[in-house]
Amino acid sequence: MRVLGIDCGSEYTGYGVVEEVMAGSRHSTNHGRRLVCCAQGAIHLKTRDSMALRLQQIFSSLSAIIAEHQPQVVAIEDVFYASNVKSALKLGQVRGVAMLAASWAGLEVAEYAPLTIKSAVVGYGKAEKMQVQQMVMRLLHLDGPPPPADAADALAIAICHIHTASTLKRYHTAHS
Amino acid sequence: MRVLGIDCGSEYTGYGVVEEVMAGSRHSTNHGRRLVCCAQGAIHLKTRDSMALRLQQIFSSLSAIIAEHQPQVVAIEDVFYASNVKSALKLGQVRGVAMLAASWAGLEVAEYAPLTIKSAVVGYGKAEKMQVQQMVMRLLHLDGPPPPADAADALAIAICHIHTASTLKRYHTAHS
Repeated sequence: MRVLGIDCGSEYTGYGVVEEVMAGSRHSTNHGRRLVCCAQGAIHLKTRDSMALRLQQIFSSLSAIIAEHQPQVVAIEDVFYASNVKSALKLGQVRGVAMLAASWAGLEVAEYAPLTIKSAVVGYGKAEKMQVQQMVMRLLHLDGPPPPADAADALAIAICHIHTASTLKRYHTAHS
Repeated sequence: MRVLGIDCGSEYTGYGVVEEVMAGSRHSTNHGRRLVCCAQGAIHLKTRDSMALRLQQIFSSLSAIIAEHQPQVVAIEDVFYASNVKSALKLGQVRGVAMLAASWAGLEVAEYAPLTIKSAVVGYGKAEKMQVQQMVMRLLHLDGPPPPADAADALAIAICHIHTASTLKRYHTAHS
């Protein structure tokens, strides 16, 4: 399973593509499956550009990432909190365009609450940004400096989806 | 000048295309210019569909309206108020996709505050919905029942842009 995680923001939108590689592949470990980071980064929107232009840039960039990395599903954070209505509207605009890029490419969009994402990755719903970065590095066996916070959050969303999907699969197998 | 006004909503998104026809045309009056309604209606989003699917429907419908009616500019309401963060996020998502449809077609997006729109159309910033509907009908010389509230609001946004652009043009002519 290959998942594109997106962490929406009105200035930086992080993205991360994570693949679950099964036993028998050259990436596999003794545990039978392993998570691999295929791509990660952030789309930087220039605040001097009009919002319409910024949204166009988000759509183009995400469509290009989807075309290049061919994920099977897109995972995105379900936001319930913003400091005020104006920032919620701004964030909603970016989120709407990100969801559109996914559904336009024929992909399903899975949404996860921030607490669920942190619990799935760090094991603690109120984990700090740095703990998420460190845990993402460990789970994806990344070397070097940790990925920027936006990219790390996007990778965490993708990992959360893979964990959730695996759990659901095991549950259905056990109960069928 | 031909303007597409869009009134975004997470269930109904109204649209209205208004053209300012100049003297000499068959639509003209003694006043030298007249506003004509070229199209109006509302895109109904089914709440049982996923948000990603609804956003795709908004984008497709607005892109088709733009392709058919060839507006030169898109006008949209600038929202500052929502009952809570969750509804602001939902509205933002629709708004983002509407702005994307415009900029994707190479059109500029003009934004107007609700107070500015009502002042431009009714002459009173706190006008009721029915007053807006009635005034839109009068300004566009529409017969029959008034357009639904979402379409009337979209037509009002388009009329507001035409009035504002005309005022700016007169100002620049007088000061150049």
